[in-house]
Amino acid sequence: MTQWLDEIGEEEDIVISTRVRVARNLSKYKFPEYMSISESDNLTDDVLNRVKKEESDEYKFKRLRDLNKLEQRVYVEDHLISPSILKNENIGSFLLRKDEKATIMINEEDHLRIQTLFPGLNLEKAWELCSSIDDFLEEELKYAYDSDLGYLTACPTNVGTGLRASVMLHLPCVSMTGSISVIIEGLRKIGLTARGLYGEGSEALGFLYQISNQITLGDTEEEIINKLDKVVHQILTRERNTRKYLTSNRLVEMENKVYRSLGILKYSRILSSTEAMEHLSNIRMGETMNILKNKELSSAIKLMIDIQPANIQKKLNKEMNSKERDIERARMMREFTLGVEV
Amino acid sequence: MTQWLDEIGEEEDIVISTRVRVARNLSKYKFPEYMSISESDNLTDDVLNRVKKEESDEYKFKRLRDLNKLEQRVYVEDHLISPSILKNENIGSFLLRKDEKATIMINEEDHLRIQTLFPGLNLEKAWELCSSIDDFLEEELKYAYDSDLGYLTACPTNVGTGLRASVMLHLPCVSMTGSISVIIEGLRKIGLTARGLYGEGSEALGFLYQISNQITLGDTEEEIINKLDKVVHQILTRERNTRKYLTSNRLVEMENKVYRSLGILKYSRILSSTEAMEHLSNIRMGETMNILKNKELSSAIKLMIDIQPANIQKKLNKEMNSKERDIERARMMREFTLGVEV
Repeated sequence: MTQWLDEIGEEEDIVISTRVRVARNLSKYKFPEYMSISESDNLTDDVLNRVKKEESDEYKFKRLRDLNKLEQRVYVEDHLISPSILKNENIGSFLLRKDEKATIMINEEDHLRIQTLFPGLNLEKAWELCSSIDDFLEEELKYAYDSDLGYLTACPTNVGTGLRASVMLHLPCVSMTGSISVIIEGLRKIGLTARGLYGEGSEALGFLYQISNQITLGDTEEEIINKLDKVVHQILTRERNTRKYLTSNRLVEMENKVYRSLGILKYSRILSSTEAMEHLSNIRMGETMNILKNKELSSAIKLMIDIQPANIQKKLNKEMNSKERDIERARMMREFTLGVEV
Repeated sequence: MTQWLDEIGEEEDIVISTRVRVARNLSKYKFPEYMSISESDNLTDDVLNRVKKEESDEYKFKRLRDLNKLEQRVYVEDHLISPSILKNENIGSFLLRKDEKATIMINEEDHLRIQTLFPGLNLEKAWELCSSIDDFLEEELKYAYDSDLGYLTACPTNVGTGLRASVMLHLPCVSMTGSISVIIEGLRKIGLTARGLYGEGSEALGFLYQISNQITLGDTEEEIINKLDKVVHQILTRERNTRKYLTSNRLVEMENKVYRSLGILKYSRILSSTEAMEHLSNIRMGETMNILKNKELSSAIKLMIDIQPANIQKKLNKEMNSKERDIERARMMREFTLGVEV
């Protein structure tokens, strides 16, 4: 999986991916929290019927209750479904587009969460695709919509556009100099927020930050997208300037950080996912700073997903305890670093 | 320097070195603390005259005031003189035997400190040599001696035999399992003590412990030496049993520790002496556990001395600040680890 990361995206030295999602609900059903399994099956059928009419070849359909825990977690780790949908194991399902660029989640927090995912900075395309899927579904499904408030959602924070647009940034340099805290504080003031790799509540591991809009009400979709795009470009400039500064003034310290991570990845025999993420992040930093000669920038990021617990177990096709995973993860890293030139 | 480490010693998998010293004072002079420079010169002449009569070819003589700070510190780092003698820079001097196995320090805390130093476990030889130098000096120099108390010394903790015998042990396995704290507690109860690499007050860096007698009064010299020898053999058994246990039950954890240290030493660009010591200590552990194939066991220990601040500056023949030393130390480590086979 993670084929959505295969293409080279815009601004790929810093921007890992762009994600847009809208939250939608059908007026004739209760919110998922209050829904029975049979009601949810009816809702799921409504959605499937709409998709089958024109797009059935484009999507594969999965019910969570037909997947084992491991398979479920792999989809989450690959960012193809949200962690929250796993809370609704009995009623949740999803349609995944075959190019992995779009997922229609059914019965997550809302009846529908339409998500699109692109490598690099690609807010316009991600929004276009999301919007077109939304329009397509709305042709036959009646959304819960209020002419004053806009789209109605299970949680009031999503009411209005129901839109969350987010961009995943790798920001090692502003993180190391400490400017990141000023940036995050500034984002908050203009209604944007920064989260870690796996969304709300997750830590900013490996210098990875998801920047997204906090507010869904008041601005139009285009305003939300444009504001985010503008702010991301400012952050890119900041990170690149800091990178130049560190290259000119702190080169040996940066080399020390990058090469130590390389040494640890090359030689460890036991490696937790948290630690592996940190070192892979330093490797990627070394590649963008031309300290290491790399094959392709995306490989460290792909590996950050491949080394997650469920992905490792899926690859080896067996259940593994934490220690076994840590040993396998270390082995994968030794294999990976064979290809990194010093 | 550190040619005293060139020979292979007994029990060299664990015992780095054996050191014996006696504290002696000449009855006709005040203790060094109260001594003028001219008095100290007279005392120094008395000692030199005795040595010159029969042994002058065996020793080289150095006055501290003729050495610069860097040269002084190199002798300390190499364990050839004690750190304390540097406090008496104006009156202190020493005679170093050309094979580096013996030093006669003049005006350290006492008028004379006769030290002998052997690789590996060699208490008997170290004591024999120390005793013979002591006898030789006493033939013409009148020692401060009390028929009840024994040899009189500046500090009451040395009165009696004036003898301190110590053995430097590398104890990674009992340190890692935590048994070391029980061992140290046990030593205290029988009048022995454990110190770090550079003696009193120094930390037990790199799993290195100096075990020595605390008590100089009451037991004869032979009793002190024999007791220490017996206890050291018990500790050796403990360390070796723990090593076997870890090899059988925690091999991947031990490999992880050893190889990570190797990775860091191979790739660092900046390395403090404390950190280098820790990793070299793990390399040595890897060699004794047959995780790494080594050239010779003593090289990691030698390097622990070579990477000390004064030694690095002496080798490059220039004053260096802390950052410059950390960079050079990292370079030395990369060179060293080229020869370590995985």
